[in-house]
Amino acid sequence: MSSLRNSTPSDQRTEHYLAAARACILEFGWRRTTLTEVARRAGVSRMTIYRTWPDMGALLADLMTREWFGIAAVAHPGGARTPEAIASAAVATVQALRDNEFFVRIVELDPELLLPYLLSRRGRSQESLLEVLSAEIRAGQAEGLVHDGDPMTMARAITLAGHGSVFSAMTMVDDHISLDDLDAELDRMVRSFLEPS
Amino acid sequence: MSSLRNSTPSDQRTEHYLAAARACILEFGWRRTTLTEVARRAGVSRMTIYRTWPDMGALLADLMTREWFGIAAVAHPGGARTPEAIASAAVATVQALRDNEFFVRIVELDPELLLPYLLSRRGRSQESLLEVLSAEIRAGQAEGLVHDGDPMTMARAITLAGHGSVFSAMTMVDDHISLDDLDAELDRMVRSFLEPS
Repeated sequence: MSSLRNSTPSDQRTEHYLAAARACILEFGWRRTTLTEVARRAGVSRMTIYRTWPDMGALLADLMTREWFGIAAVAHPGGARTPEAIASAAVATVQALRDNEFFVRIVELDPELLLPYLLSRRGRSQESLLEVLSAEIRAGQAEGLVHDGDPMTMARAITLAGHGSVFSAMTMVDDHISLDDLDAELDRMVRSFLEPS
Repeated sequence: MSSLRNSTPSDQRTEHYLAAARACILEFGWRRTTLTEVARRAGVSRMTIYRTWPDMGALLADLMTREWFGIAAVAHPGGARTPEAIASAAVATVQALRDNEFFVRIVELDPELLLPYLLSRRGRSQESLLEVLSAEIRAGQAEGLVHDGDPMTMARAITLAGHGSVFSAMTMVDDHISLDDLDAELDRMVRSFLEPS
């Protein structure tokens, strides 16, 4: 996300509308949120919102991108080069996504919205995360710190492994095995995968 | 699954109804399949089917369990003890699920049916797979072939990592990176995770 300082007035307005949409979805869920409701909360006309997004689907795509970008930028800022640091950043990203209130609300109320990203295509924020991760792997390989292999293939394999922990970790938790226990294993899995053999 | 040889007449009838339901779902998809249609295809009355399953949800749960059990029993029969063998069996299970025509049909036509298993709870066939996997890890640990740690926690972490490859691998494939490339990385990931440090 561009910071407000560098953004244009148009960016700032879009941010304001997205914030209104986010608040609506947190309160009512996606299915019960309309562009009319978003306009009311943003204090603008319905036509103003329509000019930016033709429907709630287009708005949601932008909103998800904004949200996941923000999470990844904090949890996985890039610059890691050792297997330990890359694994820590990957696990931090998984945890931040899983704890995000917007993500949790969608899982609770409208999980079918996640299906396209699970089954059919990479989202824009996933692309961005893959770029960060593959650059880290490449940098680590250049110093002999990370196992050989195509950096993008390795980044995608790590992202796929993380998928299960983002979406399904709660299905594997019980009185004996905690989320922390599973995250520790994911950390070790990514680390040992990246270590030179 | 019990074999037909050891099954009771009642089991055989249930198998026959499940096979009819499977054929309906492959042809029409889940949403357009009714218990009436299943009864017609099985050549019995609607009441006969109703006596076994009160609704299509209950029938589907049994059908999925039967299908995934069958896949896992072939792809991951148990008995592996080395990191190499356990990783191979895990990847074979992922591939067999992903290639299964019933699974593919649900992903194509009725993916929302998979959401409870993704987000909320373990299915019976997952439980069974976790038992096989944790037993293998325990056996490998007893011989010093596998890294220390709680076998069930490790089995769940591997299963979560495999989730992404079952459901989302297609989102990570393009002209440069194939499914085989990603599966090879998953194999190395599971193997290096299991190897003693």
